[in-house]
Amino acid sequence: MSRVYRNIPRAEASVIDGLAACGVATVHEAQGRTGLLAPAMRPIYAGARIAGSAVTVSLAPCDNWMIHVAVEQCTAGDILVVAPTSISDAGYFGELLACSLVARGVRGLVIDAGVRDVRDLTAMGFPVWSRYVSAQGTVKETLGSVNVPVVCAGAAIRPGDVIIADDDGVCVVARPEAAAVLRKSLAREDKEAAVRARLKAGELGLDIYGMRAKLAERGLTYVDTPEE
Amino acid sequence: MSRVYRNIPRAEASVIDGLAACGVATVHEAQGRTGLLAPAMRPIYAGARIAGSAVTVSLAPCDNWMIHVAVEQCTAGDILVVAPTSISDAGYFGELLACSLVARGVRGLVIDAGVRDVRDLTAMGFPVWSRYVSAQGTVKETLGSVNVPVVCAGAAIRPGDVIIADDDGVCVVARPEAAAVLRKSLAREDKEAAVRARLKAGELGLDIYGMRAKLAERGLTYVDTPEE
Amino acid sequence: MSRVYRNIPRAEASVIDGLAACGVATVHEAQGRTGLLAPAMRPIYAGARIAGSAVTVSLAPCDNWMIHVAVEQCTAGDILVVAPTSISDAGYFGELLACSLVARGVRGLVIDAGVRDVRDLTAMGFPVWSRYVSAQGTVKETLGSVNVPVVCAGAAIRPGDVIIADDDGVCVVARPEAAAVLRKSLAREDKEAAVRARLKAGELGLDIYGMRAKLAERGLTYVDTPEE
Amino acid sequence: MSRVYRNIPRAEASVIDGLAACGVATVHEAQGRTGLLAPAMRPIYAGARIAGSAVTVSLAPCDNWMIHVAVEQCTAGDILVVAPTSISDAGYFGELLACSLVARGVRGLVIDAGVRDVRDLTAMGFPVWSRYVSAQGTVKETLGSVNVPVVCAGAAIRPGDVIIADDDGVCVVARPEAAAVLRKSLAREDKEAAVRARLKAGELGLDIYGMRAKLAERGLTYVDTPEE
Amino acid sequence: MSRVYRNIPRAEASVIDGLAACGVATVHEAQGRTGLLAPAMRPIYAGARIAGSAVTVSLAPCDNWMIHVAVEQCTAGDILVVAPTSISDAGYFGELLACSLVARGVRGLVIDAGVRDVRDLTAMGFPVWSRYVSAQGTVKETLGSVNVPVVCAGAAIRPGDVIIADDDGVCVVARPEAAAVLRKSLAREDKEAAVRARLKAGELGLDIYGMRAKLAERGLTYVDTPEE
Amino acid sequence: MSRVYRNIPRAEASVIDGLAACGVATVHEAQGRTGLLAPAMRPIYAGARIAGSAVTVSLAPCDNWMIHVAVEQCTAGDILVVAPTSISDAGYFGELLACSLVARGVRGLVIDAGVRDVRDLTAMGFPVWSRYVSAQGTVKETLGSVNVPVVCAGAAIRPGDVIIADDDGVCVVARPEAAAVLRKSLAREDKEAAVRARLKAGELGLDIYGMRAKLAERGLTYVDTPEE
Repeated sequence: MSRVYRNIPRAEASVIDGLAACGVATVHEAQGRTGLLAPAMRPIYAGARIAGSAVTVSLAPCDNWMIHVAVEQCTAGDILVVAPTSISDAGYFGELLACSLVARGVRGLVIDAGVRDVRDLTAMGFPVWSRYVSAQGTVKETLGSVNVPVVCAGAAIRPGDVIIADDDGVCVVARPEAAAVLRKSLAREDKEAAVRARLKAGELGLDIYGMRAKLAERGLTYVDTPEE
Repeated sequence: MSRVYRNIPRAEASVIDGLAACGVATVHEAQGRTGLLAPAMRPIYAGARIAGSAVTVSLAPCDNWMIHVAVEQCTAGDILVVAPTSISDAGYFGELLACSLVARGVRGLVIDAGVRDVRDLTAMGFPVWSRYVSAQGTVKETLGSVNVPVVCAGAAIRPGDVIIADDDGVCVVARPEAAAVLRKSLAREDKEAAVRARLKAGELGLDIYGMRAKLAERGLTYVDTPEE
Repeated sequence: MSRVYRNIPRAEASVIDGLAACGVATVHEAQGRTGLLAPAMRPIYAGARIAGSAVTVSLAPCDNWMIHVAVEQCTAGDILVVAPTSISDAGYFGELLACSLVARGVRGLVIDAGVRDVRDLTAMGFPVWSRYVSAQGTVKETLGSVNVPVVCAGAAIRPGDVIIADDDGVCVVARPEAAAVLRKSLAREDKEAAVRARLKAGELGLDIYGMRAKLAERGLTYVDTPEE
Repeated sequence: MSRVYRNIPRAEASVIDGLAACGVATVHEAQGRTGLLAPAMRPIYAGARIAGSAVTVSLAPCDNWMIHVAVEQCTAGDILVVAPTSISDAGYFGELLACSLVARGVRGLVIDAGVRDVRDLTAMGFPVWSRYVSAQGTVKETLGSVNVPVVCAGAAIRPGDVIIADDDGVCVVARPEAAAVLRKSLAREDKEAAVRARLKAGELGLDIYGMRAKLAERGLTYVDTPEE
Repeated sequence: MSRVYRNIPRAEASVIDGLAACGVATVHEAQGRTGLLAPAMRPIYAGARIAGSAVTVSLAPCDNWMIHVAVEQCTAGDILVVAPTSISDAGYFGELLACSLVARGVRGLVIDAGVRDVRDLTAMGFPVWSRYVSAQGTVKETLGSVNVPVVCAGAAIRPGDVIIADDDGVCVVARPEAAAVLRKSLAREDKEAAVRARLKAGELGLDIYGMRAKLAERGLTYVDTPEE
Repeated sequence: MSRVYRNIPRAEASVIDGLAACGVATVHEAQGRTGLLAPAMRPIYAGARIAGSAVTVSLAPCDNWMIHVAVEQCTAGDILVVAPTSISDAGYFGELLACSLVARGVRGLVIDAGVRDVRDLTAMGFPVWSRYVSAQGTVKETLGSVNVPVVCAGAAIRPGDVIIADDDGVCVVARPEAAAVLRKSLAREDKEAAVRARLKAGELGLDIYGMRAKLAERGLTYVDTPEE
């Protein structure tokens, strides 16, 4: 049952980089408010914004053996996505594994578990989104699989899907839809840029979006606060 | 049932600014250890310390329509306080809404739910205290109310109450008591300044506060650690 | 039942400082993956890495009286370890107590509860690892004990044990084993330095650690991703 | 600041009993989906369904002194509502206090904290809704207040408000609105009875509620599952 | 994007019923320790053990409209599986919807959110596994989909997959593998029956499973507890 | 490092049984409000009340091998106490292991992790207190230790200590103090019996405990609720 799938398909690099520039909130909205991982997935330091192709790892809880296996399947531009088969807060990943991933051009790690050596990872500029920070060591005893479909932090991810991650969290875009989602994301950005200028000038969203009529129709009433 | 109350009363600007300078821990103690919101309310970035008049929003879970309505009720020096009627971790607020609030002179946001675009909000210097960071989008379908009494993160807040927020969390001071609480806060600060100097000089709190007699009376015993 | 034990034994300063330099993850591994406090214990600011001798405090929930008692038992190089007898999220410790500890040369605080004045503590460079940040005040009514064995965040700690704390969390090393654990930690660092150089050069952990044979023996299979 | 308010107003007994018969879910809906306490408030045993007038207690965390004070303010048909000023999981209430409340005709307890002696309470048939079950003892050192407005498990409750509690949780109805909410609840029950009969007979809600047109207008599409 | 898929494939009734008889723990082990939903999914009452074909519902948070749509797609022997696209603790399902499902022969509900009317559901014998019990009402405003692949409580579920649920939780078996998993489950039961008899007779698992040699080889040492 | 300690000392059977009869809340109070395990430890069914000698197991997360080793060290009247070295919600224990323990006269299990087969365990009348219920399987790969001191759910437990468990949770009494704690528990029960009778007769705790003077001295004020 333990398999390592090699040579997964990946999205085009320009599409991936375009999605990174748009960021998680925009991409999540542009693809119909889907694909967001649980908000418990937090970056170990602020300010990183990346996108990459998912190399997925399904592994036993408290056992990081398959991460070593997965490293070999990574190429430049990938993001490692690690999902234990049951919840634990152990620290599956640290600075040595990060050195290995950096040597291969991997852009970051998304792990629904714990990570350690966060001071070193921050100094290296290797971004990680995780549920926990923990130094708790793991074993190397049980097989898992690499590049199989996984559920990570509540989101279904297939190998080669595009992962976008920033300070707002982590989002997945199915590989076949990545180009279309990028187009919609850029369109959304254009629209927002126009609205932003008007909002900064003091116009109200109530007017820009034409909400007043619908609010009144639903029964919203304005009253003055009574004197005390 | 859905109402927007206009022209709420507000505390004096000098009182509000005085409370900001004292900070959450001092104000909370000065008003008798009340008014603190749940510690799960965390700032999106470190270092901000603000106070302002609460413009309150009661809204449906996963629906941010009423925030757009509330913006119009805000004036310079206000803090928007958002409380969904049931818990969710969606992201009700982002950078566009912040642009609109900044244009009106609003000082920050307190929301018992999720916020997104935290990288942009941090860059803008618009502080937010929230329970979650999440990009999860919301809908605009259900009415709520603006400037009604709300319970936000476990604290009862009335429109026009003074909100103080810093790295320690968020505290509410009832508007009619704001001036008195400021006086007590300043008195507390004076007393603490004197104690601080003595502590830094190496005096012990045991002596400064005269605790030794009461401790002995209660039965506290000092013994030497036995040799092993 | 309430006792203050004076003159606890402490580990050698050079051993303590050596363990600080190794950091939590290395020390935890070196002593057989034991001694880690729960990952919910987080630093109030990033970047601190300390070690010191534990002065332990067992106190009643929402009552910080015994911290004042414990200050007197601290000497230069100590770390205060505070464990309430039942969980609460109140803020037992703030800037004034920190001033007193700094005056005595204490290196930091580990508390399985809340802390406040985090902005001031950060400015002072006084590091704290806590479960919560909260301004909620406490009382001074009930006795506890100082320098008794405690359970703090799931780890058993005796007075004089060595505490190591950094961005990965907090670890305890039993005093009698501190020198031996330091030796093992340094050995581990040496070994990791050699591995690090090879990983950075692009070698794989699979080869460095000789994992391929064992993986194959367990049944790991490599397959190419099928064309779609 | 510590006050005990005597002789609070109460709703009519027939209204209270009518609301009990309707249950939490119906009453909550009938008053516009408001008033529900956090779902973390769970009954210590299944099957109880009660309503009563709130006698409120605001007390210090881990200190149950004011519960003893509150007992005297209770009369037949009341429900004791206990809200600590900061979260703890201690056990503030046990069988002896229940004996005292039973002697006064009190119908149950709602406490945003812990309760103990649940085996005895179950045997006595004294229902409790609490956030925790815990034997952790509390002290009697700090004053609080009785029959002041409180926030309990996220809901604002005034003394004399009607509390309804059953296996679904706990709901509060403001005393002045209790009669009106009962009327709406009964109307809702009538309507539901008619729908229930049709649903049991196999009719679909889609048809009973006339949802099909609106769903189609919004764009819902029906397709057959493709052959594999 | 909102689709309702009709006429989903289902596993054979005899296979489904066989899996129900084996129960969650056995089936989960038999299929290689996969498919378990998060342990936060708890039954509303003890003792139910069911299996059925998944009719899946993906819906907006705090909006139960699509459950009404899904009812029509259910046939005898199904289990309704409901997954909101973001976490909330609202009560999406109650007794009226259960009446409708019972009329169609549906065996139970699995919902990664809240449920209400649990007293009535218990009396009806309609089993539910949910993350929360809550009376909080939902709206009917936003479309979702029926019989699409969902992630429910961390497990990927496709329409027509077999759901097994009992006091241990909830497990999913992919439809194409259901018959094979049943065979393995029955084999496991046979093996366990033999072991059970020997254990009851006082034999030790250490001997039955032949563990002593491997334990010794790994270095396990037996020592007598020293006299005090 | 992996050791199994044989022939641990145990408290006298009559003392153990006496503590069981007193129950967790009484024993916890009688020994000075110490020894309680975290309230997250819940019984799998209501109504059990047991005491026994702790046979302790320290094991790797998600690995139940050492439970098999521990069974052999159990004798009639023991309670198995299992503490993983890092948190996980896997199900380490089920009905087969319970059969083995029952054959040896073991009275129950306390485990700071998950348990499965709860339906069978309930039918057998084998009580378990655990943090989770979960069917998630574990491996048998890593050694741990039996009858070493452990921290279980926040409480330090030594082999041979007396464990008391009932619907209120779990409490540990150090073996050398068990007889003294029993005496204090019985004294407490006598005192409570007298108070109980007076409370049932309608006397108030305020009077029985003589609280009125101290409350007045602290400043408690009684006022009539103002007319509206």
